[in-house]
Amino acid sequence: MLRHVVMFRYATGTSIEQRAAVIAGLRELPAMVPEIRGYHVGEDAGLVEGNFDFAVVAEFDNADGYRAYAANADHLALIASTIRPVIAERAAVQFDGD
Amino acid sequence: MLRHVVMFRYATGTSIEQRAAVIAGLRELPAMVPEIRGYHVGEDAGLVEGNFDFAVVAEFDNADGYRAYAANADHLALIASTIRPVIAERAAVQFDGD
Repeated sequence: MLRHVVMFRYATGTSIEQRAAVIAGLRELPAMVPEIRGYHVGEDAGLVEGNFDFAVVAEFDNADGYRAYAANADHLALIASTIRPVIAERAAVQFDGD
Repeated sequence: MLRHVVMFRYATGTSIEQRAAVIAGLRELPAMVPEIRGYHVGEDAGLVEGNFDFAVVAEFDNADGYRAYAANADHLALIASTIRPVIAERAAVQFDGD
């Protein structure tokens, strides 16, 4: 399995509605990207100071599945319309494992 | 479920042996921390430029499970002896979900 983990900080001034649109949009992707095997999205729970604001853990059969997700047109449209305009910082890793 | 996702960049000059000790040490934690429900660790697969170097996705029943992990003595000893000395940057999120 190839696991893609990515987290983001919102830009200053991002509204509650904009944040909700990001999370809702991401949660629609498993229905649009057939290569997704597992998909977990959520806003930071507020347990620890200094955390990023939200994260995605996405699971694929292999690196080709991740590449298909990264290049998927619906995914790219969501990034362009809803995510990129409100993101200040991004951190990501893809790793193989069980 | 409470999912803890965390990623790190190694400090410049971190050796292959030091990196291997970090990953091996983390992979021993599920046997030492009874609150862990799922635990996935790996070095970045090198698919994308600019990524962090490795990530952990840890699953717990709830926030109390995460707090027990964060405060676990074996975990803290590994951080102090093996992880913190070679880490340049850390990013984390904990989020609730299925």
